[in-house]
Amino acid sequence: MLVVMDKDATQAQIDAVVAKIESLGYVAQPIPGGERVAIGILRNPGPVDPALFLDMPGVTQAIPVSKPYKLVSREMKREDTVISFPGFKLGRGHFVVMAGPCAIESEFQALTIARLVKAAGAQFFRGGAFKPRTSPYSYQGLGKKGLEILKKVREETGLLIITEAVDQDSLKLVEQYADIIQIGTRNMQNYTLLRRAGHSGKPVLLKRGMYATLDEWLMAAEYIMSEGNHQVILCERGIRSFGEHARNLLDLAIIPAVRRESHLPIIVDPSHASGRRDLVPPLARAAVAAGCDGLLIEVHHEPEKALSDGAQSLYPDQFGQLMQDLKTLRPGKWF
Amino acid sequence: MLVVMDKDATQAQIDAVVAKIESLGYVAQPIPGGERVAIGILRNPGPVDPALFLDMPGVTQAIPVSKPYKLVSREMKREDTVISFPGFKLGRGHFVVMAGPCAIESEFQALTIARLVKAAGAQFFRGGAFKPRTSPYSYQGLGKKGLEILKKVREETGLLIITEAVDQDSLKLVEQYADIIQIGTRNMQNYTLLRRAGHSGKPVLLKRGMYATLDEWLMAAEYIMSEGNHQVILCERGIRSFGEHARNLLDLAIIPAVRRESHLPIIVDPSHASGRRDLVPPLARAAVAAGCDGLLIEVHHEPEKALSDGAQSLYPDQFGQLMQDLKTLRPGKWF
Amino acid sequence: MLVVMDKDATQAQIDAVVAKIESLGYVAQPIPGGERVAIGILRNPGPVDPALFLDMPGVTQAIPVSKPYKLVSREMKREDTVISFPGFKLGRGHFVVMAGPCAIESEFQALTIARLVKAAGAQFFRGGAFKPRTSPYSYQGLGKKGLEILKKVREETGLLIITEAVDQDSLKLVEQYADIIQIGTRNMQNYTLLRRAGHSGKPVLLKRGMYATLDEWLMAAEYIMSEGNHQVILCERGIRSFGEHARNLLDLAIIPAVRRESHLPIIVDPSHASGRRDLVPPLARAAVAAGCDGLLIEVHHEPEKALSDGAQSLYPDQFGQLMQDLKTLRPGKWF
Amino acid sequence: MLVVMDKDATQAQIDAVVAKIESLGYVAQPIPGGERVAIGILRNPGPVDPALFLDMPGVTQAIPVSKPYKLVSREMKREDTVISFPGFKLGRGHFVVMAGPCAIESEFQALTIARLVKAAGAQFFRGGAFKPRTSPYSYQGLGKKGLEILKKVREETGLLIITEAVDQDSLKLVEQYADIIQIGTRNMQNYTLLRRAGHSGKPVLLKRGMYATLDEWLMAAEYIMSEGNHQVILCERGIRSFGEHARNLLDLAIIPAVRRESHLPIIVDPSHASGRRDLVPPLARAAVAAGCDGLLIEVHHEPEKALSDGAQSLYPDQFGQLMQDLKTLRPGKWF
Repeated sequence: MLVVMDKDATQAQIDAVVAKIESLGYVAQPIPGGERVAIGILRNPGPVDPALFLDMPGVTQAIPVSKPYKLVSREMKREDTVISFPGFKLGRGHFVVMAGPCAIESEFQALTIARLVKAAGAQFFRGGAFKPRTSPYSYQGLGKKGLEILKKVREETGLLIITEAVDQDSLKLVEQYADIIQIGTRNMQNYTLLRRAGHSGKPVLLKRGMYATLDEWLMAAEYIMSEGNHQVILCERGIRSFGEHARNLLDLAIIPAVRRESHLPIIVDPSHASGRRDLVPPLARAAVAAGCDGLLIEVHHEPEKALSDGAQSLYPDQFGQLMQDLKTLRPGKWF
Repeated sequence: MLVVMDKDATQAQIDAVVAKIESLGYVAQPIPGGERVAIGILRNPGPVDPALFLDMPGVTQAIPVSKPYKLVSREMKREDTVISFPGFKLGRGHFVVMAGPCAIESEFQALTIARLVKAAGAQFFRGGAFKPRTSPYSYQGLGKKGLEILKKVREETGLLIITEAVDQDSLKLVEQYADIIQIGTRNMQNYTLLRRAGHSGKPVLLKRGMYATLDEWLMAAEYIMSEGNHQVILCERGIRSFGEHARNLLDLAIIPAVRRESHLPIIVDPSHASGRRDLVPPLARAAVAAGCDGLLIEVHHEPEKALSDGAQSLYPDQFGQLMQDLKTLRPGKWF
Repeated sequence: MLVVMDKDATQAQIDAVVAKIESLGYVAQPIPGGERVAIGILRNPGPVDPALFLDMPGVTQAIPVSKPYKLVSREMKREDTVISFPGFKLGRGHFVVMAGPCAIESEFQALTIARLVKAAGAQFFRGGAFKPRTSPYSYQGLGKKGLEILKKVREETGLLIITEAVDQDSLKLVEQYADIIQIGTRNMQNYTLLRRAGHSGKPVLLKRGMYATLDEWLMAAEYIMSEGNHQVILCERGIRSFGEHARNLLDLAIIPAVRRESHLPIIVDPSHASGRRDLVPPLARAAVAAGCDGLLIEVHHEPEKALSDGAQSLYPDQFGQLMQDLKTLRPGKWF
Repeated sequence: MLVVMDKDATQAQIDAVVAKIESLGYVAQPIPGGERVAIGILRNPGPVDPALFLDMPGVTQAIPVSKPYKLVSREMKREDTVISFPGFKLGRGHFVVMAGPCAIESEFQALTIARLVKAAGAQFFRGGAFKPRTSPYSYQGLGKKGLEILKKVREETGLLIITEAVDQDSLKLVEQYADIIQIGTRNMQNYTLLRRAGHSGKPVLLKRGMYATLDEWLMAAEYIMSEGNHQVILCERGIRSFGEHARNLLDLAIIPAVRRESHLPIIVDPSHASGRRDLVPPLARAAVAAGCDGLLIEVHHEPEKALSDGAQSLYPDQFGQLMQDLKTLRPGKWF
């Protein structure tokens, strides 16, 4: 923490800040500048609240100089995290594709799509059994029956499974069926759910909140890791912005920014980011070229009949073409 | 839903859209325009997914023309909702002030502040026993012990109690102790929590998500109401924006916009919106002049020692001055 | 500037930063912390570019600790600026209302509206002769003929005149006719126009850009002041955000934030901020209660026939009612 | 325009809307729906102002269904625009790279960098002679002397020149020296400048405003085209958002969205979008994979000594590596 004083702060005001710092048990180090004085706070065991100084007479700014996160940070662990699955890995150059419908609607639907995405080269099947929907009147998913269908998909196709948990009860079920537990954008700061995921033995995919800064997102991952589960995968899925040409604004700069700050793998969901099928392939290609570790893509064999998010689901042949196109973009090599 | 065609859409393309609409069991009504054709969808029982049409050849736009919410809407209930408490009311001109610390830290702290805000004229005491914090290492609240303290505050001061529930377990406790259950901004779309609150007999204060549109917010209220609890109070607390002079951006235009769309009461939290003590009184005054039904304000007798959010807590004398100032602003009369 | 090092930065890396600072002619002061070292830069005559350090090995952050503005700052001039007009003042408690149509359409229209707003208590007549419009096909204003009409309005009603200049040529005309030169949101960083306004003898009202931070806005005012014209009035008019219930998002927290940083007066335009007539009175009242120095409001006697922005123009009787309501809100007293 | 009525609008209210539409000389077509009535407006020669209906009793929404732009639209011209330069083209699969420093500082600096970017494969040299800077005290560029240097760069290296014009005077000079006239983000709605650029014989690169929607950006291009200059190149450079990990938020979804709406070529500037050197190569690669027609990149041989924006300038070897990497990404082939 650095406390910056007004240009014409008095010595008494400076002394008061020093005394306050020392009363908190820290060390104060005044730094006389050309125009103004700043006072560094040393020996503080954790973050210091700027609030403690902002209203003292003569104080202009209180600037934190330490990052709030620990376990997620690259300072703590220099090497990229790699997560192992039967037969393949994710992270540090190991690239995966997760594809499937927004919601599991029936065994026939799930198996049909799973076989198509498997044939096109995906490693994971995605599909929601528990759906967080903006409207209480929208389709909410098949629940446990959907998980049973996902189990069958894995048995029949060999695809691994990623599916969303929306609360503690559904997480308890999901962790029994899925290979990755997904936590959605609306639950990024549902701390009870994050802590519970931190006690799971399964990897957790944590979507970025629509309003979340990089720090807030990493702190949400810190919640999971602080409970003991270090297998966290970050997933960028677009943030809220003012544009009308896409549902959300995909923020690809976060990929290299995450790599700088954290050792965790990061994948991208271009389907929810855009909300429009025609934007998905260009954004998927862009995400790969920006250096992500994987993609999460919605595919449906009959999107026009999908019970949710049909407009952003690729047709199987579009997905097949995209998988072909991705090969030329050197997935997993760009960092 | 209105499906708008390209300027040079062919008759075959128009026919295909009509056929699609009819295959869904709705009625299609083409509207020949000067430049292009639009096709209205009639007799649909609920919202129609724009996705169903957006990718058909010749289609340019698919525009929903119905609002997605029902129980919250003023179309459904013309008259403003009023919520009754022992001795006073909230809504339709009945104005209330809820004040207290961010977090309950001790019985002494809570009672000290409660007596001060009671003396200044507040009707409710606010204070968190369960705190959703960005960092897992930050102070998380006293839990049930905090609720016991709140109970004592009510007994000793007569103030009613509002406090936050963060999951199903804490809600079960909170509803036994509080007069209003608060659901925080991070949980605005925690649907499991919303549904559970919908089964409570206590009024629910629903804070706006940092990224939420008016429609999304009202749909979250609809979740609560659709389970049977019609006592919902909306609370604007600022949204995420790019400015650096305040923590969030208080959106006072939402007050008249809510009144136009919904019958629910709306109050304002200027403390979280600003994050800076010096901004709280001007924003509180502004909220009253804009016509809100109440205020939720952080007050602490020693903000510089507060365990959370001290920088935005008013000193007791600032709060007293604010309460005096508010009287001249005709609270509860501006709509 | 404070250069913050990695937790495990080497002494050689620290030395390199010190050497770089000294090579630039400044003084380096390392501040050993608990976890990491930070290095203060002293004796720099102006702002230092963070770029100079961000890519050096071992450097994590480079934090500017000085504000970039000078003439606009309260550090430079403690006392609020007051601008004098014939018969009244603006700023430091002197409150004014500027009202009129978006665009001057005819002498009849202008005089009709001017008499109405004068009767209701406005001091200034507003109306555009040069209109910056999103579409090249929209009504662009009457130009010099519009200015002649404004001159007549002043002669006949005694109202002072505020009108917009959009480039150097129009500014040259506007400054001959108007009492305040308005610079619009789209031109907030049109530096050629700002510099030209800095050479004018007339006060300048500078609207905030839709994307502008407080610092960027004050720096735009600094452009005007640095050329010699110190009569600058800031005008908040809403920023771009994601909400759909209002055209822009009115940021009233900027009022106290401006007062903290700057001595310049600040007024509010609730009409452009909302874009909807029904939102204008609540936002106007809120702006007054937040402590602004004046209002800029669109009024039209026949808004449904207005050539631009009719939807946000108040009817004369609405404006009259608003002016009555404002009196109870203590305009000019809230800071 | 579609005027949507309240669910319980009366027949008299519907009749009033119909009468209003007819009084404006248009044709009204009521569309009875399941829940409510909507009224289409036909035969209107241009856009209709929603304002005309929004405040009529019983009206809920007024939805425009036509796009406001004409010359820029793909409906008007189906085929992608290609712009020809001596020896190569831009657009419809013809990919170009424009590289160089933010500001021209000296002949030595310009020639040094130009030779390096030429050797790496760039077709254009970029460099500002007129610099729009946030602070009046920052380096403002060499002006005409800078243009003379750019002329020399072209003579010595064969690179074509792109440089920014900030007002009418500088545009008059720039069009004599440059092969492309750049209009910056702050001037995207400087209509006087846009109209003047519309009279130039040189192609114009129009950067997106930091707050601009797709429609506003295309309307700005429409200003240029409506004056007769159809050689417009769009340039995405990031928009304002809340994130702190990059200066602006690069919006790559706008590339396919522009292609859907318009025939104009679109390039991307990853340097200004990120503000940080380490983010530039990943974003440049991503932009190519998303299907842009070219890149505008800052390169400096000594970024740490650059007079502006050094932190985002690539070192020459980084640029060389990027140019190598781009080749594998099939520039110009992704649409």
